[in-house]
Amino acid sequence: MQVETAKVREFCHKVYCAYGFSADESAIITDVILRADLCGIESHGIHRLVRYHDEITSGQVNVNAKIETVHETGISAAIDANKAMGQLVGVEAMKLAIQKAHNNGCAMITVRNSNHYGIASYYTQMAAKEDLIGVSMTNTEAICVPTFGSQAMTGTNALALAMPADPIVFSYDASTTVVPRGKLEVYRKNGEPLPDLWALDENGKPCKDAAVVIDNIINKAGGGIAPLGGMGTLYGGHKGYGLSVIVDLFSAVISGGLTSNYVNRQPDHTGICHYFMAIDYGLFGDKTVIKDGMSKFLQEIRDSKKAEGQSRIYTHGELEAELKTQRENGNIPISEKTLNEMHDIASKLNLPLESSF
Amino acid sequence: MQVETAKVREFCHKVYCAYGFSADESAIITDVILRADLCGIESHGIHRLVRYHDEITSGQVNVNAKIETVHETGISAAIDANKAMGQLVGVEAMKLAIQKAHNNGCAMITVRNSNHYGIASYYTQMAAKEDLIGVSMTNTEAICVPTFGSQAMTGTNALALAMPADPIVFSYDASTTVVPRGKLEVYRKNGEPLPDLWALDENGKPCKDAAVVIDNIINKAGGGIAPLGGMGTLYGGHKGYGLSVIVDLFSAVISGGLTSNYVNRQPDHTGICHYFMAIDYGLFGDKTVIKDGMSKFLQEIRDSKKAEGQSRIYTHGELEAELKTQRENGNIPISEKTLNEMHDIASKLNLPLESSF
Repeated sequence: MQVETAKVREFCHKVYCAYGFSADESAIITDVILRADLCGIESHGIHRLVRYHDEITSGQVNVNAKIETVHETGISAAIDANKAMGQLVGVEAMKLAIQKAHNNGCAMITVRNSNHYGIASYYTQMAAKEDLIGVSMTNTEAICVPTFGSQAMTGTNALALAMPADPIVFSYDASTTVVPRGKLEVYRKNGEPLPDLWALDENGKPCKDAAVVIDNIINKAGGGIAPLGGMGTLYGGHKGYGLSVIVDLFSAVISGGLTSNYVNRQPDHTGICHYFMAIDYGLFGDKTVIKDGMSKFLQEIRDSKKAEGQSRIYTHGELEAELKTQRENGNIPISEKTLNEMHDIASKLNLPLESSF
Repeated sequence: MQVETAKVREFCHKVYCAYGFSADESAIITDVILRADLCGIESHGIHRLVRYHDEITSGQVNVNAKIETVHETGISAAIDANKAMGQLVGVEAMKLAIQKAHNNGCAMITVRNSNHYGIASYYTQMAAKEDLIGVSMTNTEAICVPTFGSQAMTGTNALALAMPADPIVFSYDASTTVVPRGKLEVYRKNGEPLPDLWALDENGKPCKDAAVVIDNIINKAGGGIAPLGGMGTLYGGHKGYGLSVIVDLFSAVISGGLTSNYVNRQPDHTGICHYFMAIDYGLFGDKTVIKDGMSKFLQEIRDSKKAEGQSRIYTHGELEAELKTQRENGNIPISEKTLNEMHDIASKLNLPLESSF
């Protein structure tokens, strides 16, 4: 179902105001959430309202949290989010990184004791808009099984990077698992067997039954999803496993927070951690020359010879930027299930329902 | 065949002195090359002497090159290697990164117009020895085909990161292709078909014939190796493709050098580019606490439940560190083919042959 973007935005804003967030805070949270829907990443968009609702009402998210800087230098800061909404601390942390990078060339900000912050590329694109390279990482609850293991030790652990380029910013944003959990849910819903090497059962054996894997994940019964590259080493799964550890290093270890294997282990505390970095690429030479170099390289990739049967080679962030342009002043697709969830939340919060929903 | 490490070291040193490098320079080059053999990464060790010999004698490597800093700040530098030996500029660049990181918290150094620099983890481990996080990346000749493409646009494009930890430094060092070219050569030698999704023919179709793929690569006839995650998107190949672009961004684009698709296109110039970064993780809090956090996390991963039939979960760099300890004061294995190549080089350089080789 197609719903007017402006109406979804208005609804989402009202919901967050109803939780007790200020109008400004609600606008920030709404903007991060809607960006996912605008860019076609439904898993991180309005579909998450229910999950966030549960986290806010259970106290995992503290609406009145005061974000605290526990360590700071001219090019760094370590922030304790004190259970703040992930989107709020994310935007604040990247703003700080941008400011420090403008002043001192680069900056790295760690965040501990936060919550799910939406799509990582929201933050990296903030830096790109300021003509900086933006980097962001976040850990999550453990779902990814290390090579030769049978127990999830790292999270979906997204890694994102944006670099200014014309006509479209290069914007990489990907989990370090072979697929996100949402993909398994689609296979379960359709009753289809999972592809080889995607997932493992509680004994670390390949498992093609999505229901078994998801139930095990929910019950923390062992097994989980393979790293980027799949189970074993055939397609580089050991490399994906290493990348997921690197994400935990930057988000959790150097922030003094919880690594993925400790995230979401307490009823009132997720403990999710993030990392933000902004780099002024003028540190290496003339910015116009460097940006032109990136634009040229990306164009050469897009223009390079296609595989038989393919009409287009995408550079990262291209598809999302196109969707965003289409949807920003138009509609976003929302599933019936999500619409019902929105109605449910509105009713719980005593909000008047928009007649058009 | 097992050869005494000390003798190989002595031989290699003599070879580089014979090319006209100083004794100190030859010791650095030898140390980088031998580290690969010590750590079990034969593809980047003494096996490469022939390739380096060709590059030095053809003028791709300039023995008398003066390394030039073309842009510099307190936390960055852009270096033009002027065709210097990759190992020499690599060590110098990482030393500069380390010095700046000690003084100013972090540093990023780009290098353009260089040559193959050996294993990336040699440099990241230099930083780890100084209690810093080390990062290094390098591009190479294009060999990796972007998702939906049929033409190689990025290189093997290694990404390495080392973080101090007890008892073993975390040391990630991996190409962003699904496998390196050397792996295809093993399949060709054994006459075995390649696994699905590893390689593509000149039309971008899956190709299981290693000889066809290698010949196409050598003749720049199209096709090549898939990114980390394999061909298509099933195991995350589109993510591996993005990571390979990120390596080119940091090594080539911001250095003002040649991206992979232009590397090795001229007879007297490879144009390989590198990136080096050192981060003092004291930027984020107490270093002892942070390092202990990393050691604990890695130990928890090693101790986590194994898959059925597996006895051990490795953290990155563990296996290499064990081999290095064994081999450092012992022997390294050298194939007969490589030994013959060493004899051949000795004869070309008029060096007396070691009787024990």
